[in-house]
Amino acid sequence: MADPQFFKVAGPFPLHELAEIAGGTLAEGADGGAEFSDVAPLGDAGPSHISFLDNKKYVQDYTQSKAGACIVHPALASRAPEGMHLVLMEDPYRGYACVARAFYPLIQLNPEISGNASIHETATTGANCRIDPGAVIGANARVGDNCWIGANTVIGQGVSIGADSRIGPLVTLDFCQIGSQVIIHTGVRIGQDGFGFAMGAEGHLKVPQLGRVIIGDDVEIGANSTIDRGTGPDTIIGAGSKIDNLVQIGHNVRLGRCCIVVSQVGISGSTTVGDFAALGGQVGLAGHLEIGPGAQIAAQSGVMRNVAPGEKIGGSPAQPFREWMRGVAAIDKMSKRKGQ
Amino acid sequence: MADPQFFKVAGPFPLHELAEIAGGTLAEGADGGAEFSDVAPLGDAGPSHISFLDNKKYVQDYTQSKAGACIVHPALASRAPEGMHLVLMEDPYRGYACVARAFYPLIQLNPEISGNASIHETATTGANCRIDPGAVIGANARVGDNCWIGANTVIGQGVSIGADSRIGPLVTLDFCQIGSQVIIHTGVRIGQDGFGFAMGAEGHLKVPQLGRVIIGDDVEIGANSTIDRGTGPDTIIGAGSKIDNLVQIGHNVRLGRCCIVVSQVGISGSTTVGDFAALGGQVGLAGHLEIGPGAQIAAQSGVMRNVAPGEKIGGSPAQPFREWMRGVAAIDKMSKRKGQ
Amino acid sequence: MADPQFFKVAGPFPLHELAEIAGGTLAEGADGGAEFSDVAPLGDAGPSHISFLDNKKYVQDYTQSKAGACIVHPALASRAPEGMHLVLMEDPYRGYACVARAFYPLIQLNPEISGNASIHETATTGANCRIDPGAVIGANARVGDNCWIGANTVIGQGVSIGADSRIGPLVTLDFCQIGSQVIIHTGVRIGQDGFGFAMGAEGHLKVPQLGRVIIGDDVEIGANSTIDRGTGPDTIIGAGSKIDNLVQIGHNVRLGRCCIVVSQVGISGSTTVGDFAALGGQVGLAGHLEIGPGAQIAAQSGVMRNVAPGEKIGGSPAQPFREWMRGVAAIDKMSKRKGQ
Repeated sequence: MADPQFFKVAGPFPLHELAEIAGGTLAEGADGGAEFSDVAPLGDAGPSHISFLDNKKYVQDYTQSKAGACIVHPALASRAPEGMHLVLMEDPYRGYACVARAFYPLIQLNPEISGNASIHETATTGANCRIDPGAVIGANARVGDNCWIGANTVIGQGVSIGADSRIGPLVTLDFCQIGSQVIIHTGVRIGQDGFGFAMGAEGHLKVPQLGRVIIGDDVEIGANSTIDRGTGPDTIIGAGSKIDNLVQIGHNVRLGRCCIVVSQVGISGSTTVGDFAALGGQVGLAGHLEIGPGAQIAAQSGVMRNVAPGEKIGGSPAQPFREWMRGVAAIDKMSKRKGQ
Repeated sequence: MADPQFFKVAGPFPLHELAEIAGGTLAEGADGGAEFSDVAPLGDAGPSHISFLDNKKYVQDYTQSKAGACIVHPALASRAPEGMHLVLMEDPYRGYACVARAFYPLIQLNPEISGNASIHETATTGANCRIDPGAVIGANARVGDNCWIGANTVIGQGVSIGADSRIGPLVTLDFCQIGSQVIIHTGVRIGQDGFGFAMGAEGHLKVPQLGRVIIGDDVEIGANSTIDRGTGPDTIIGAGSKIDNLVQIGHNVRLGRCCIVVSQVGISGSTTVGDFAALGGQVGLAGHLEIGPGAQIAAQSGVMRNVAPGEKIGGSPAQPFREWMRGVAAIDKMSKRKGQ
Repeated sequence: MADPQFFKVAGPFPLHELAEIAGGTLAEGADGGAEFSDVAPLGDAGPSHISFLDNKKYVQDYTQSKAGACIVHPALASRAPEGMHLVLMEDPYRGYACVARAFYPLIQLNPEISGNASIHETATTGANCRIDPGAVIGANARVGDNCWIGANTVIGQGVSIGADSRIGPLVTLDFCQIGSQVIIHTGVRIGQDGFGFAMGAEGHLKVPQLGRVIIGDDVEIGANSTIDRGTGPDTIIGAGSKIDNLVQIGHNVRLGRCCIVVSQVGISGSTTVGDFAALGGQVGLAGHLEIGPGAQIAAQSGVMRNVAPGEKIGGSPAQPFREWMRGVAAIDKMSKRKGQ
């Protein structure tokens, strides 16, 4: 299905292997030896494809699909069209993710250090790295094994990058330690000065920013996002956190493990965000706040207070989710009253 | 008027030619043979300049202007100062745009492929291209005729670019097809992975993003904007659409023809926007929505529902424009009540 | 305290010198000859460190600190722990900034023009410049003395940069004049076309953008921010203004002196902002507004009207700060009423 100019499909795989990769089990009657050559959405799939059903909205597509195989919740097994081979599991989307990663593994590196890269003589690079043309790597920087450094990316003095990390093209890394298996997309800026000034009528005096940025393992950071280094303490991004495009993270922020930060969020200086918190698109967090683990913040919210663990909030300024929705409803009612 | 260090003015042009370029008609008594050497705003213009009146706010400037010629709506012809030559048309701003483009055509290319560019041996470039130093062009990429690829721009494997397109410096293009006469400004990121994860308590698993980005003809995209590639379907930007700076467009978004997307807008995954829709600055659209053709969405709105064709909405969450304004007025009234 | 891989500390300095640098006075009993080797926060500091107290929240840290010296307001001198040497002044944070700048001066330049930079033969560079690999400098560009041009930065034809300015890596400068002692962080885009079209049902016609961007002395601009050039008039950033990351500034905007513009703000075309105005994070200003000197605009506000000098406003659409807070309280009250 995927354009072969850009993607190379692996496989085919027999169904029993796909079930194992997905972490599911073959349904009764499924042919574990049947081979499948690609993934596809329910509506487009044919007999050689494996698909998945995750969202009730698509049950009809499922009942009419021509997919040869499908990953599905056991409760929906009985509604499969005749002849479809099923892989059963509680979380079919995760199963699909695993299977899709088998058909489309990360692009192989083809280790090669471009002669057009500028690598300082004191910098070190691990085994099997690919370093593209125009990349600039500063003094004493250390790049781990199996890393990909994209074209025209600039890595400052002393920066370290763990193994198996992929740094896109045109990225800037400065004053930072990057973990392993990290993905940093194109145009990301890490480690520049935070926004710190001693303000006054005689002008604003720049305050030295003496901390670093520490990025945990398995973090992903989207295109053109910016993460400033700390003022003295470090700015910290916890392992497994996923950050979307055009996000701003201020100095001294501490983001926990496995947080989700959607596009265009801004997190002001010294705010702490707990593990598994989720911030919707365009959310703004004021500085020096504590956002509890598992908190969920609706898109475009403006948060000016601490948020309890697991709390769901929305609005600007943000309120508990239910109150926010009631407030929205009340305004809605008033605005529909004639003669107001 | 324009700084000659940066701009080179063409001309002079006789008025009859300017009227034709504008798409207007010479008013009675206007001297079609008179030559004009530049464009200028009403307040600054002199006898050798042609100006325009588009906004009623500037009628006084018009009545007092020393401009030698002016493009103006016929209804205002009678208020021109004595001796001003008039070009009459319904849409004077469009006329001005045409005339200004004649005086200041796009910078000529000076075709040259820099010896400092890294162009893969399997990539192809058309006739009369300019490729600046540090540009990196990947395997099997195809650049059409008369294109300009800016300095240090990185173009991935298999990307194609139509004729007469201008890609600014420090741009990233990956997994995409770019149309003809497209303008992509500096720092734009096209084609990186969308934000797709199978989330779970054991961590968030990256889902392969198997689609592309398709950019239609005559599209313009502003500095540092980001457009993610699709998950399987493509992300599509319709012909003639204009996108401002720092805009985020998620995976699988389909933007119609001739849309206007102002700075810092975020469009979440799988949302469809109809032809000629206009999104104000900092608008956020949730995912999987249908925004009808010609819809108008006020700046900073947060849109969580479908929008009808031609509908005007505002607020967060967005409401029909009139209700939004009434709601704003109601809050305003309450907030002015003493003792609340 | 700061990681020696990234930072080199100057000093030690005797206390009398630090007091002078800070602009404060030694308290009675302080030993002006005692030497200090570094700055540190109150909680971490030891006997060889100088710290500061600026925020009442940290008075307890102060009374228990092991810092050898502290910069503090005279009113709090009596609460210092025994043996702490005090530097007294009205604005201890500014004093700290001065002292920290003495211990951590801007990184020295090590003047060197990389052989991998592409500098046009008509461009000029002043004395003691550092120009990093991959930088591209266009025809007739002028770089002042003691400037640092980061790796892979692209400077267009005719651009001028004053003395002692630092342009980070991967920056784009076009159609602009940059003052002296300016700091431009990585990924900033200055001088690209503004978002100007003559819109219409037959498509949107690009209007030539014939102005420049003028950046005053001592301006700082954060990572990935974008400043478009004017349409005919210039876009102007006043001396001493500080702009954070991911900020958008439209064509013809005039920002005054010493303004503070926090991350992700958007300022629409032709708006004027007076000296010392402060815009919170994610604020949006509509076009053609006048924002008075010293105005303060709360984070996430949407401003659709002129703002008086010194006025404090908040909300979207923005209202006077007190009315906004009352409106927020009123909604809050309604949303807590049961049965609504």
